[in-house]
This record gives sequence, structure tokens and C-alpha cells, in this order.
Amino acid sequence: MQTVAIVGVGLIGASFGLAIRKAGFSGNILGVSSAAAVEAGLATGAISEAATMEEAAAQADLIYLAQPVDRIVETLGWLGTRARPETLITDAGSTKTAIVGAAGALRHASFVGGHPMAGKETRGAQSADADLFRNRTYVLTPQRHPVPEDFRRLLEGIGARVMEMRAEEHDATVALTSHLPQLVSTALAALLAGENRPDIGNVFGSGLLDMTRLALSPAELWSSILATNKANVIQSLDGYAQAIAEVRQALKDDDLEAVFGRAAEFAASLRKPNYRGK
Amino acid sequence: MQTVAIVGVGLIGASFGLAIRKAGFSGNILGVSSAAAVEAGLATGAISEAATMEEAAAQADLIYLAQPVDRIVETLGWLGTRARPETLITDAGSTKTAIVGAAGALRHASFVGGHPMAGKETRGAQSADADLFRNRTYVLTPQRHPVPEDFRRLLEGIGARVMEMRAEEHDATVALTSHLPQLVSTALAALLAGENRPDIGNVFGSGLLDMTRLALSPAELWSSILATNKANVIQSLDGYAQAIAEVRQALKDDDLEAVFGRAAEFAASLRKPNYRGK
Repeated sequence: MQTVAIVGVGLIGASFGLAIRKAGFSGNILGVSSAAAVEAGLATGAISEAATMEEAAAQADLIYLAQPVDRIVETLGWLGTRARPETLITDAGSTKTAIVGAAGALRHASFVGGHPMAGKETRGAQSADADLFRNRTYVLTPQRHPVPEDFRRLLEGIGARVMEMRAEEHDATVALTSHLPQLVSTALAALLAGENRPDIGNVFGSGLLDMTRLALSPAELWSSILATNKANVIQSLDGYAQAIAEVRQALKDDDLEAVFGRAAEFAASLRKPNYRGK
Repeated sequence: MQTVAIVGVGLIGASFGLAIRKAGFSGNILGVSSAAAVEAGLATGAISEAATMEEAAAQADLIYLAQPVDRIVETLGWLGTRARPETLITDAGSTKTAIVGAAGALRHASFVGGHPMAGKETRGAQSADADLFRNRTYVLTPQRHPVPEDFRRLLEGIGARVMEMRAEEHDATVALTSHLPQLVSTALAALLAGENRPDIGNVFGSGLLDMTRLALSPAELWSSILATNKANVIQSLDGYAQAIAEVRQALKDDDLEAVFGRAAEFAASLRKPNYRGK
């Protein structure tokens, strides 16, 4: 692998550039992004030169798409006949089914979908971190092409814990573990925003801050994620509405012990190091 | 004020002892609690001697009840005819209406209900912190007796931001800002605990950890809080079920911007220093 192109030099894209550099990659790292993002990426060393999509398609051995989900879908369409047979294309989008589907447009190049379970509260190449992927799950969803060994080694080299899943399986899982928590937080903050109680802003504890942190996320970050996983997310919301109804009934019946017990056990299991499912 | 008695030498009770000591209180601090809690309180300097409830009732100028809500109600019943007219009794319970009602049993002593909006993830006198109340809202709910000036100065001396509210107003507010977030987190963790997806434990990000932190709380901590605020909490759950239904509809309609916007604005407002409501 001589040349890597990062398309979308934001937090994830720039962190990928810094991470492979730190792991010893000495080739070119092209950056395809807005002028401001390219500038920040050059300044931090996440990319070594600015490029156009045409240049990236012509030169890169690996094209790393780190754009929002809807933009990744567009870029894959654009790359359709333009990407070379020698090129591996991958992405870091938060949903996989729509993206793997869009990758069907690639005539020559190989494609392996990906989703690094890594992030930060701050965005942009300025916040990039060479260790962002270290000890974090990195889901790959190979479909038409197997995962090339050198790509797998590259991800393991940056400290990621690579696991393969089917795209549909991934999307059903993140509907529950990522998309539902986001909407649960947003709904809570939206409800409180509409309550006409002047003391809400004084009389709260750190629990409310925990529970409204995700609600700070802007719609622009989430709309294409949720739009490409709608059926799963609606199913998760329906399950959650049922869970709220069960908690309500347990409260009425003074019988909260069982549901608190199950919840606490699950919450504790998430916090065990190297937890690998039930 | 010569003698303070702390009943229930856990995190809040022991922190109160450390805080008033740090603020210059030089009198006796009696601790009424289990043997283990008294020992930890003596070791950290949160209390200066162990006492029985009888001794506390006979000697203390201020009795600070830092037990679980149901135990505070019991203790107030016990203190009914035993507390002296010179004694001020206060409490740190998370709900106020039931406690203020139980304080009607006090024949001679004065009572002012309280709720410090302060806490920690760890419990017990071992975790006590002299600065736990600093810059935190401390709600007082005076009813039959006004807040004595020396008690208010004591709370201000430990850095608390004292505000007075009616007990009913307090309980309706914390139903939304504290009890609802707890149940929202518990319901989320309970739902995920019941899902039969082996990869839930691998494929999640820090957002799920935020949203399940409160779910770690044990039922024993919450059952008497929720039981003494049931009508308000059920109303909050009904409002929240409606908010979830609205988010679901907005997702179906690809129209999430408004609800995300309102939620993000509210979440940001909670994080402004000295936020004092809308």
C-alpha cells in the first residue's frame, strides 16, 4: 500500500490518517475535503497533501470514506466506473446496509464496509487523535469481497479490534446500542424543554447531565444515519415504548426490584473490560 | 449551635459533617448510624462521637436526617414527642411532600425540609467530601416554620446555593429532572438486557455508557423515593411516552430537525454556569 486517500477529513478521517502514520505507514496520504478541513488535516499531519476526487481515484490504493452516510452513498456512486481495479474502498459510516448497497455501483474496485466504534464529543480534524481507534471495536461488513489481509493488518496496527458482521446484523444492533440511546436522550431533553417549570434549570443533578449529553448532537449529524436505518430504529423505539410502559406498571405496583435488577446487571456488564456479549 | 447530630452517616450525612467542620463549626458532631458507618464517619472526622437516637434527641441543637426517604419518615415519627423545642430538625431526602407531612408529628421541635442537589457515583462515609455541596443547589421547603437565619448561614458557609420552594413544587420538578431520567435509563438498560443479540456487548459506543450510568443504581436506593412521588413520576412517564411517540413520528416523516433543535438547545442551557431556569 503506497497511497491512501481520506475523503472527508473530519474527526474520524483525520484520526485515521494520524493513526496509520503513527503505526508506521510512510506513503502519501491524500486528503479530499473542504478547504478548511484540508488545512487542518495538513497542519496536524493527518494528511500529506490535498487532492481532488479525480486524483484520489487515479492514485490511491486505499480510499477511506469518512463522510456523513448520505455523502458516502453519493461518493460511491461517483466512484462507480472511475475507481481502479487495484483500489480497495472502505468507509466509516454509522450504518452499513445502504452503503453496502450503494457499493454495488463499483464496477472495478473492491469494497469492504466499516464502522469504527470510536468518537468524541468534539468534531473536526482539530480534535483528531492517533489513538482514537485503540482498543475499540472496528466492525467490517464484507459482502462481495473478503477483507484483504493487508487492510486487516493496517486496522490491527492502529490498535482496533476488528470484527466481521453482516451489514444487516450491524444495523439492527446499532439501532439498539447507538441510535435508540440518541433518540431516548433527545426525547428527554425535548420534553423538558417544553415543560413550563421555572425551576427545572436549578433543581437537577448530574444524572440529568448524563442523560442529556447525547441530546447536544445536531440533527445534521444524525438525519442520514437514522434515515438509512429507519425500520430498525422504529422497531427499537417500539420496544422501548413497551419498556417504559412496563416500568410505569412496576412503579404503580411498587414492584421495581426486578426491572432495576436486570437493568443494573446489564449496565454493569457493559463496563467489564473486554466484554464480548452475553 | 453547639451540637449537631447526623442521623445516617452515609455519603450525604458524612459530607455534611466534613463540610461544616471545614467551614469552622467547632462543636460536637454526633453520629447515629450503623456500627460500620459510625466507624467510617469517626475515621474521616465527619463525626466526633457515636450516639443513640435518644442521646441525639436530648443533646442536639440541629438534627440532620440523611437516611433513605422511608427511614426519614420513620425517624420523624419517633422524634414526635421526644425532640426538644430548641432543636431544629432538617433532612436531606430526595422527595419532600411525604417528609414534610411526617414532620407534622413533631410536637415541639422546628422542622425545615431540605434536598441538596449533590451526589456521587460512590456511596458511604468513605466517599464523603467536604466540598460536595459547594456551588450546588440546596432546596429548602419550609412549611410551618421559617428557615432559621443561623441554619441558612450554615448552609451558605458550606458553599451551597440555598433556594426555597414549596414541597409539592419541588417534588413535581424532581419527578422530571431526576426521577424520570433514572427510569429512562433503567428502561433502556432493561430493554437491552432482554434483547437476544450476541453483539450488543461489542458494538456500542460511549453514548450507551452515558445513557446506562444511572441504571447502575440499585432499587433499594430508589424504591422509597419513587413510592413517595408516584403520581408526579407517573405523569412524567406519560409525558415522556408522548415525547417518544413524537420522535417516532418525526423519524417516519424525515422531519427530525425541530425536535433535535429544541433538545440540543435545552441540553446546552443546562450546561451554562449559573443557569437559573428559562
